[in-house]
Amino acid sequence: MANQDTEPMSRLLKLAKKFNCFYLSGLHAGDCRAFVVDGQQIGLVRPDVMKELLNHPQVFQVHPEYVQLNPAFRDYNERSAKVEEVLREWRGGDKFVALHGWREEYYDVRAQFNTPPLFKMDRSATSLFGIRKYGVDINGYVIDPVKGLSIWLQKRSPKKQTWPSFWDNCVSGGLSVGFGIHETAIKEAAEEAGIPNHLLTKLKSGGCISIFFESNRGLFPNTEFVFDLELPLDFVPTNNDGEVETFELLPVSECLERILSSNFKTTSVPVSLDFFIRHGVITPENEPNFIQIMELLHVPLQTMYNQPHRKHKISTNGETNSLGRI
Amino acid sequence: MANQDTEPMSRLLKLAKKFNCFYLSGLHAGDCRAFVVDGQQIGLVRPDVMKELLNHPQVFQVHPEYVQLNPAFRDYNERSAKVEEVLREWRGGDKFVALHGWREEYYDVRAQFNTPPLFKMDRSATSLFGIRKYGVDINGYVIDPVKGLSIWLQKRSPKKQTWPSFWDNCVSGGLSVGFGIHETAIKEAAEEAGIPNHLLTKLKSGGCISIFFESNRGLFPNTEFVFDLELPLDFVPTNNDGEVETFELLPVSECLERILSSNFKTTSVPVSLDFFIRHGVITPENEPNFIQIMELLHVPLQTMYNQPHRKHKISTNGETNSLGRI
Repeated sequence: MANQDTEPMSRLLKLAKKFNCFYLSGLHAGDCRAFVVDGQQIGLVRPDVMKELLNHPQVFQVHPEYVQLNPAFRDYNERSAKVEEVLREWRGGDKFVALHGWREEYYDVRAQFNTPPLFKMDRSATSLFGIRKYGVDINGYVIDPVKGLSIWLQKRSPKKQTWPSFWDNCVSGGLSVGFGIHETAIKEAAEEAGIPNHLLTKLKSGGCISIFFESNRGLFPNTEFVFDLELPLDFVPTNNDGEVETFELLPVSECLERILSSNFKTTSVPVSLDFFIRHGVITPENEPNFIQIMELLHVPLQTMYNQPHRKHKISTNGETNSLGRI
Repeated sequence: MANQDTEPMSRLLKLAKKFNCFYLSGLHAGDCRAFVVDGQQIGLVRPDVMKELLNHPQVFQVHPEYVQLNPAFRDYNERSAKVEEVLREWRGGDKFVALHGWREEYYDVRAQFNTPPLFKMDRSATSLFGIRKYGVDINGYVIDPVKGLSIWLQKRSPKKQTWPSFWDNCVSGGLSVGFGIHETAIKEAAEEAGIPNHLLTKLKSGGCISIFFESNRGLFPNTEFVFDLELPLDFVPTNNDGEVETFELLPVSECLERILSSNFKTTSVPVSLDFFIRHGVITPENEPNFIQIMELLHVPLQTMYNQPHRKHKISTNGETNSLGRI
């Protein structure tokens, strides 16, 4: 394994900062406002979105300290319908790049991962409101007798709406309504990489990573549940849903180089780094910024929206009123 | 494995909140002040310590927003000598419980883990200043053909200064001046559990955990580098330094119960939880608060002291001056 003087290791912290660009800078710039639904902060709104929300005062109430979905809406259905009306108008007017990815696929928005949904919106719109998203990722690997630990990567199809033709982890997918976490991993493994059921008995939960990324499509407070899957030496993944161009098996050092290249999907990097750390490839001995990188693989998305630093940012008069009291 | 309705799993979040009691409440109460040395925040000072610092204005400058080690002190040696003078006076006057643990063992205080030390102080005093500490932990385990994954735990000696007679992880120890991380793990494995060198070739780095605990001894922003070590079925750990009363091998479910009991050292719990998560024992399917627990195993100690929420707490007049500009 490379020691701490080699090039690849010194570049890992830069990469960890890149996939947390919003956590490390935008979050503290103070120009985003809390997005509150039913008295709970469930997102963050950037100035570009805020400007458009002002045109819909019946749906979104823009306060100096926060933005609120009209509390007069009674339930899940009414909230969902009112939000959708606005989003379809924006989509028609071509207001936001994010909405080019509109897929008529709903996402349930909750205050916490395991609390009941407050409303639903199209998946593509969640980044406009800084809604937390959840997905699963599988690290497919083999222990090659000659090359050692080797990892299967996929090249995304050039037809994908986001990150077309970029390299990515072996299998990944968002959690959909009605599917469990483990169940989603199994489903995606079959659809995306053609992994048969009998090989999936070795699927092993390894934790989760959390990052806060920002792009021209909006805000991405993402949590990925990670799974490891040791595959037989003679198995080759095959795609069944048209979303993958090709698969490639890479030994550790080549895999690290691929991840560090500009052709790897930025928001998938944390899953690979976490894998390499859990498997003793990246260690505190060979990576001088090991602790900082570990922190940046687990940013506090669950507590963030209720932390004092948010109160600070959304307060303009020095008051310390907590969002909890709205 | 237990499902999410069983008792042990629902108690894990409570435990994660317990070993992060300061992160989740004290930190935001606003009564601690940043401890600044050479223009960098390296700790936090509670009101009880602040009160005593006021008696040493030549050494500690107490400002409304922060506490500063006299910037006139020129270097490592001068800072260390001046701080030690104060600490020895406190120790003689029996001012703080923490100093009962005085061991004439120095700890190098740094702005970041890998930056040069600013000064040294006795290990026992670091909690009075909220100084970040680093240690290593080894999860010693066996794959028992009948009982499955089983974990070696140690019972601490009744003579230990802290947590006497409590159950603890197989091997743990603080990082000392002049010893590397992996080197410390090897040294502690031999001293604490009598693990011979040939078994230690299987020692595997698994990451690190970070927590922020508080007790009557002060503040504990602790990071532990974790290692896994699969041991042969017939190996039994033996203590060589008098710090351990006994060792016990427990299958997963019994080990979880032991950790959840009141006899387990609170600040060692995160290492075990991290092990169980990385090894697929605690999963998002059987633990409803999985994401929150993952976050509480990796609180942002490295960025915390320079985050805006600290500025908020140490500012009394609404200014947003950053500590970096002090």
